[in-house]
Amino acid sequence: MASDVPPPETKAEIAGAVRDALAKHGYARLTTSKIAAESDKSEAGLYYYYDSKDDMIVAFLETASDYLVRELEAVEAAGPEETLRAACDRLVVREENADDRGVDVAMMELLSHAPYDEEFRERLLTLERTTLDHLAGIVADGVETGVFRDVEPRATATFLLAAARGSTPLSLALGMDEAGRDLHEQVQDYIDSLVVD
Amino acid sequence: MASDVPPPETKAEIAGAVRDALAKHGYARLTTSKIAAESDKSEAGLYYYYDSKDDMIVAFLETASDYLVRELEAVEAAGPEETLRAACDRLVVREENADDRGVDVAMMELLSHAPYDEEFRERLLTLERTTLDHLAGIVADGVETGVFRDVEPRATATFLLAAARGSTPLSLALGMDEAGRDLHEQVQDYIDSLVVD
Repeated sequence: MASDVPPPETKAEIAGAVRDALAKHGYARLTTSKIAAESDKSEAGLYYYYDSKDDMIVAFLETASDYLVRELEAVEAAGPEETLRAACDRLVVREENADDRGVDVAMMELLSHAPYDEEFRERLLTLERTTLDHLAGIVADGVETGVFRDVEPRATATFLLAAARGSTPLSLALGMDEAGRDLHEQVQDYIDSLVVD
Repeated sequence: MASDVPPPETKAEIAGAVRDALAKHGYARLTTSKIAAESDKSEAGLYYYYDSKDDMIVAFLETASDYLVRELEAVEAAGPEETLRAACDRLVVREENADDRGVDVAMMELLSHAPYDEEFRERLLTLERTTLDHLAGIVADGVETGVFRDVEPRATATFLLAAARGSTPLSLALGMDEAGRDLHEQVQDYIDSLVVD
């Protein structure tokens, strides 16, 4: 059993190392030694806090939810239309950044394990629900203030999130660059269609 | 080395066994013995035609492209609007069918390996390009015949395909049933928006 609960800054440092290792290697090829290579800790140092590679991934997923919320909140722009555009632009990962691309593909791999792994499923559900709540909140704000048509906020947010998640297999995993560019435009066109003329 | 190239019906049988085994176990937990359990062949019988589990998966992916095209062509309905609705309804997998759900989640897992595995990547690219071409063809047909607005067929098809692919992590891998239902409706609403009033 791991000896201790890590203090917040240690958990954040290890979560960052898991993120970097996942971005480079994916989940199937991930080892604690590869996580240690991205960390300021040794493998023994990691095992002091976590019993297994999967426990370290759970720590990363918990940190990722907080990080995503902070990142989405940081894109807060002038009014719901611009805020929604910026949030969606953030969610549809661009091909240029190899690190973000690798993390997104690894998240897709972790999602494929969710039906078989309750710990992963629980954290990934939190992550996706948090994202969905955030997007739905922006849409609801736009509907209330008369910026957007009278659409159903949660269903609209789900559609946008699905289109963003669908960019990972097409644009990032398979390198269909044109699909990635089309998606960025189409998401913005779709937001156009929500705006009251 | 495997002894022989399988005749088409043998390849199809083995591909079907790979599909059933992937649906039940996913890729990480897949073994040739689990494929044999879904096949009328023994493990030795499978190795007569294929050198490895991954070669059997490649055979499944090749067969899957043909199967998908036949399935999409079979949904040919009265005119481009109804054909596009039916094709998209087919692509957004419903939660009720555990077998289809399992295959879709396993496809997402294989996609996450695509950046690291050229054989998988090549077949998955064919599969996604074929699907995209098919959808873009329906949209182009609708634009030419004046049923749809003057949208860009390929970009529109990419958006619909991404939304469909995005239903896998949310609705199938994480069991967000409401997201699945919302997506079916939203895709149809989006197709409404393409139709000339």
